[in-house]
Amino acid sequence: MQRYFILSSQIHSPFITIQGDDVHHIKNVMRMHIGDEVLCTDETQHTYRVQIEGIAGVVSTRILEEIKEQTELAIAITIAHGVVSRDKTEEVIRRLAELGVSEYCPVAMKRSKFQLDVAKLDRFHKIIKEACEQSQRNTLMKFQNPLAFQELEEVASCYTYKYVAHVDGSMPLKAILPPLGTDKILFVVGPEGGFDSKELEQLQSWGYRIAHCGARVLRTETAPLYLASICGYVYGDSHEN
Amino acid sequence: MQRYFILSSQIHSPFITIQGDDVHHIKNVMRMHIGDEVLCTDETQHTYRVQIEGIAGVVSTRILEEIKEQTELAIAITIAHGVVSRDKTEEVIRRLAELGVSEYCPVAMKRSKFQLDVAKLDRFHKIIKEACEQSQRNTLMKFQNPLAFQELEEVASCYTYKYVAHVDGSMPLKAILPPLGTDKILFVVGPEGGFDSKELEQLQSWGYRIAHCGARVLRTETAPLYLASICGYVYGDSHEN
Repeated sequence: MQRYFILSSQIHSPFITIQGDDVHHIKNVMRMHIGDEVLCTDETQHTYRVQIEGIAGVVSTRILEEIKEQTELAIAITIAHGVVSRDKTEEVIRRLAELGVSEYCPVAMKRSKFQLDVAKLDRFHKIIKEACEQSQRNTLMKFQNPLAFQELEEVASCYTYKYVAHVDGSMPLKAILPPLGTDKILFVVGPEGGFDSKELEQLQSWGYRIAHCGARVLRTETAPLYLASICGYVYGDSHEN
Repeated sequence: MQRYFILSSQIHSPFITIQGDDVHHIKNVMRMHIGDEVLCTDETQHTYRVQIEGIAGVVSTRILEEIKEQTELAIAITIAHGVVSRDKTEEVIRRLAELGVSEYCPVAMKRSKFQLDVAKLDRFHKIIKEACEQSQRNTLMKFQNPLAFQELEEVASCYTYKYVAHVDGSMPLKAILPPLGTDKILFVVGPEGGFDSKELEQLQSWGYRIAHCGARVLRTETAPLYLASICGYVYGDSHEN
């Protein structure tokens, strides 16, 4: 069933009003009619099955039932990623959102050839919302404001388990991933061209461990997907716990 | 160091002649000169470090040493994938080649909206070659000729471990992946819109097991990357064994 993320302020029980771009989606993309049903998930991860009662400037719906479901991962994954091109950013965030990642954070790094286009933030949020809806998540992946590289020192203090994905890492991921039940994990992935050697030194001095991601050299836009897939597999879904 | 896949017929020890598109790549993309070094890997997985001695219609090189290296996965992964659009095919094969997959095989399925454009096979092979070179693999991922769905019955007989990735699968991947040391594995992934229910029944009757890939619904182009990443993590690299 099609899902839409809404704000709890759109709920006036037993009614939910769907507004904004979702109205266009319901009318013109899904071509739905009065009587059709959709899911609405709010920012507190409550999900409702609702029936459409009116389609105009907004879509009026009536709550049929609250759905008890949990489709999030058991671990919160944050990917801090050297800034890549806009196209690659879009591809990476779409896939990471599907794979259940909690936060994506672009980081300015020495070898980044791009600056994050903040005029595109709305578009990035839209891509994430669509990907989270399509993949039936309970919560939206966060797109964090871009960080300066030095800010990764402060970020480090929030994470017990923090890793740098690097082709020359000596510790295989299998040997250093934290135990089951760990609540959050942070991976730093370099931009095209990888990390500058000074950046690697600094990250290590801030407590990041260098992780080896297999014998093959992964592109900057593949490594985050690889890491997210593995964490999904290793830590599983929250409803399993 | 830049790597090029060559045929063993290009080796006349102690010389290797690089030809075809690689000449353009060496001259105009990498802007290399006489004296520069590259790696050449042949179809028997032998790799040589060579020095460029001449750049003209072909690139003449001299072998400096044979490199003992092994960057392949310990397990051979085959992905049989309901035919997707050309753009998506290109993205998927590029990433799967990086992630160490052995074979990619497009399969005509009921809900495939696309037919594989065989006129683009050369382009697909080129993308795979570049991705395998960039990721420093020892061997090229194979792009198999498209199969009719019914041919998956015959394919099944070649694999002890064969799975269908399906959102409604009840067996989590973790519970059904074969033991370490397994030599090969096959995953069937549906096209956009997923499998037809009859297709699922047939696959099961042919011995394929339905695997659950987490609580989130993955797009058809994300699921193969997810599966390849996990197998890379679980089975590791062949040099580790």
